[in-house]
Amino acid sequence: MTNTQVTLFQIDNYGPWTVTPEPRREADLQTLQSRLYADISQFVGNRDGYVFFTRFDNMVAVTNGCSFDDHALLQESVGNRYPVTLSIGVATGTNPVQALADATARVQDAGSAQDKTRRECLEGRVIDDVHRTDADIQIAHFDVINATGQYTDELNAFDTFIEIEQGYAELMRHMRYAHDSLSFFVGGDNIIVVCPDLEEADYEEAIYHVEEAVDVELQVGVGRGKSAHDAGFAAKHALETCRADGTRVELEW
Amino acid sequence: MTNTQVTLFQIDNYGPWTVTPEPRREADLQTLQSRLYADISQFVGNRDGYVFFTRFDNMVAVTNGCSFDDHALLQESVGNRYPVTLSIGVATGTNPVQALADATARVQDAGSAQDKTRRECLEGRVIDDVHRTDADIQIAHFDVINATGQYTDELNAFDTFIEIEQGYAELMRHMRYAHDSLSFFVGGDNIIVVCPDLEEADYEEAIYHVEEAVDVELQVGVGRGKSAHDAGFAAKHALETCRADGTRVELEW
Amino acid sequence: MTNTQVTLFQIDNYGPWTVTPEPRREADLQTLQSRLYADISQFVGNRDGYVFFTRFDNMVAVTNGCSFDDHALLQESVGNRYPVTLSIGVATGTNPVQALADATARVQDAGSAQDKTRRECLEGRVIDDVHRTDADIQIAHFDVINATGQYTDELNAFDTFIEIEQGYAELMRHMRYAHDSLSFFVGGDNIIVVCPDLEEADYEEAIYHVEEAVDVELQVGVGRGKSAHDAGFAAKHALETCRADGTRVELEW
Amino acid sequence: MTNTQVTLFQIDNYGPWTVTPEPRREADLQTLQSRLYADISQFVGNRDGYVFFTRFDNMVAVTNGCSFDDHALLQESVGNRYPVTLSIGVATGTNPVQALADATARVQDAGSAQDKTRRECLEGRVIDDVHRTDADIQIAHFDVINATGQYTDELNAFDTFIEIEQGYAELMRHMRYAHDSLSFFVGGDNIIVVCPDLEEADYEEAIYHVEEAVDVELQVGVGRGKSAHDAGFAAKHALETCRADGTRVELEW
Repeated sequence: MTNTQVTLFQIDNYGPWTVTPEPRREADLQTLQSRLYADISQFVGNRDGYVFFTRFDNMVAVTNGCSFDDHALLQESVGNRYPVTLSIGVATGTNPVQALADATARVQDAGSAQDKTRRECLEGRVIDDVHRTDADIQIAHFDVINATGQYTDELNAFDTFIEIEQGYAELMRHMRYAHDSLSFFVGGDNIIVVCPDLEEADYEEAIYHVEEAVDVELQVGVGRGKSAHDAGFAAKHALETCRADGTRVELEW
Repeated sequence: MTNTQVTLFQIDNYGPWTVTPEPRREADLQTLQSRLYADISQFVGNRDGYVFFTRFDNMVAVTNGCSFDDHALLQESVGNRYPVTLSIGVATGTNPVQALADATARVQDAGSAQDKTRRECLEGRVIDDVHRTDADIQIAHFDVINATGQYTDELNAFDTFIEIEQGYAELMRHMRYAHDSLSFFVGGDNIIVVCPDLEEADYEEAIYHVEEAVDVELQVGVGRGKSAHDAGFAAKHALETCRADGTRVELEW
Repeated sequence: MTNTQVTLFQIDNYGPWTVTPEPRREADLQTLQSRLYADISQFVGNRDGYVFFTRFDNMVAVTNGCSFDDHALLQESVGNRYPVTLSIGVATGTNPVQALADATARVQDAGSAQDKTRRECLEGRVIDDVHRTDADIQIAHFDVINATGQYTDELNAFDTFIEIEQGYAELMRHMRYAHDSLSFFVGGDNIIVVCPDLEEADYEEAIYHVEEAVDVELQVGVGRGKSAHDAGFAAKHALETCRADGTRVELEW
Repeated sequence: MTNTQVTLFQIDNYGPWTVTPEPRREADLQTLQSRLYADISQFVGNRDGYVFFTRFDNMVAVTNGCSFDDHALLQESVGNRYPVTLSIGVATGTNPVQALADATARVQDAGSAQDKTRRECLEGRVIDDVHRTDADIQIAHFDVINATGQYTDELNAFDTFIEIEQGYAELMRHMRYAHDSLSFFVGGDNIIVVCPDLEEADYEEAIYHVEEAVDVELQVGVGRGKSAHDAGFAAKHALETCRADGTRVELEW
């Protein structure tokens, strides 16, 4: 049984800030967002978590192994180094979508994303070290079969991007509603999915669904572990097996 | 008549590098990608261009105002500071999709994205300063109407994200095939679109199309300028007018 | 009795790399060095250690609280994200200078700083968590009395810098040879000193010595703790007392 | 005749900010400072200037080639992305020390470094492009002879650092008072000096002085150019000649 610890990082009052007193330079906003994401990714990542950029002003993370104090420290450090602050909600559960819903509710209960007075809320609870197990996380790492040969080296860069995006948009919706999973595009042709306990047949079904719906062919490696890194690393290895052997689904546990 | 200078930045042989000698930590890849993007965004942005993260290993930019030497300097600087290198193609034209297709072809002609021997190619041509005009760029800045009130503060963070993503996936495809435009999600609920000479009716049609297709309500500000920043800044101001007045399409030129 | 865990981070074969195949742009080297330092500072700092930029190609850190695995992870992460690699030596002891000498010897034994074949050595040993105590670290935080009023707002920026530097150069030498302590300039008019068990009289002597030698007036707050952050935070508070009360030496433990 | 454009970047009200409402984590301050420096270094550096970290809260730059608008843009971009702001003074002249004194005076006239109401002042003037010449800048790049063999691989890391620092402290003072030059440690065993029109004999005298005073043996390459990068690049090449031929002073112009 999985037990995923999910964290929502939400920049406080970000929309209004980006246009006060007048619209800020887009390049600065892009730089600020991507560097803030990179910093959170390093902090959480070197504690074996995964962070996804999502919408950048709202980032989702799998944080098994990060304590409540770790969250507080990250919040303080961002506040010391950026012109914006973070509110944080964290929750746990066997169903990643439900855990994220709970984490989101914690932040929403503290105030609106555009509330001037809600700053640096930190709410929720984490999994104690003694309750962590090697089956807490299940991660699936998808990519597009022969994306370089079929798309990147053949189509213009935008048409390639459209193909990848349509595949992602279909997969994210399907995995969320059919399999209670959270799917994130992570660059290139890669999609990382945070799953509850799914079976090989579930992944086959999802790949089949995406191919039917938008004609994009995916393969997937799946791993389990105590942390996102452990599960994700196993998934990467499994995906390497797909690439080597031409298989569509590989589970490594 | 627009004359958009489009640049494709492609990380050389990135896919193989990420799994050699074995898969690298995902958090490090995410950090590397987002920081590389941030650096390119600063370099191009403080020359009044726009860079979009796109797939991160393939980034698309509007670079009117960046000379060929600027491109070469950026390529050298990245090579000095990162463990990966960039190949660059640049092209110009009245149709942004065609310009990107030409830029892509320059890079593809130099070798595959996974060719070990293709490194730091720099191909194409730029618009001379004397030929630049205030109508070279048309930028449309879309966002989702009342995204915070309707989605962020109400739904869980992933369901909000799904709504935004479905709106983006539909808009990007429609604007590309119906209007020869390049659409990029830039965080939050914002989408920036690089357009040829489009009229108000084109934007109304696009907004109507997306609402019909996926039930996401968009508004848009549109600007023109000599550079992406100039056009984009006018578009941001126009979008502020939409927000203030409740209009759906505002052109500012 | 203090028990300081000292780490030396040395960039492998850096000097030759900076001029191969010909000298690299200075701005890129400066950027690379300062960002690498910032990353190490974040990694170690959010585990309650302190890192000093020192010569940038050789950085010294107080790492009580960082395990051997933490050091290995940092080394791997830098290797994944930079064009250079780090060798690391770590040692412990009651005398910080001796601990750094031991850490240095570990790296030197593995090969020259300009040895092409020595890469990513990681040698030494750390203090087990069970042996850590609240008296492990003693940190002194010095600054120049009324630096802003007397120097920054009065002299040209270089003459102010000369004053600060002469004060630092004298203090660093004196503290090392008279008090077995490691002194690091940390910006502004601040110097942080990693000390063995020193008494109030030692700090008074040092301040008197620097004033006699180079006519720079210092004040100092001193703290103890289980980690560099704990000790340094107490030192900062003690220094605030100096500023408020006009005292020259304040100990907080 | 040189004509050096010197810029002073001063963080507004930084000292008080670092301890408000109570002392901020040292690792965050170090990260903030070094990343701010890196960003300024990239901005100025890719316009062929040099920036020196100096005291971090006060940074000195050679900015020939950066317009007044460039300075304003950098100031705006930092204000958009950091929790602190920059005041900037810029001045020009044949004597770099005098130019920096003039630049400093511009900032001081606007208010104290710890004045809460002085924010983002931007004062001074730059050299118009039409008046720039290939002899505007003279840069000397010093290093310590056989620093790796004699120090880094032999002494402990702090004693090596002391040697380098004593050499730097002596050189900076001597070059400033005897030769109207600004000397900056740039990491490793490297010191970059911004000079007026000096002759070979001046450099020989300086090297001799430092060896007599503190027993540190230096060598130096010197270059001239239209920009800091041009002059500094020639200096680097000249220093390579010193290393290859065993000479102490090499001029390349």
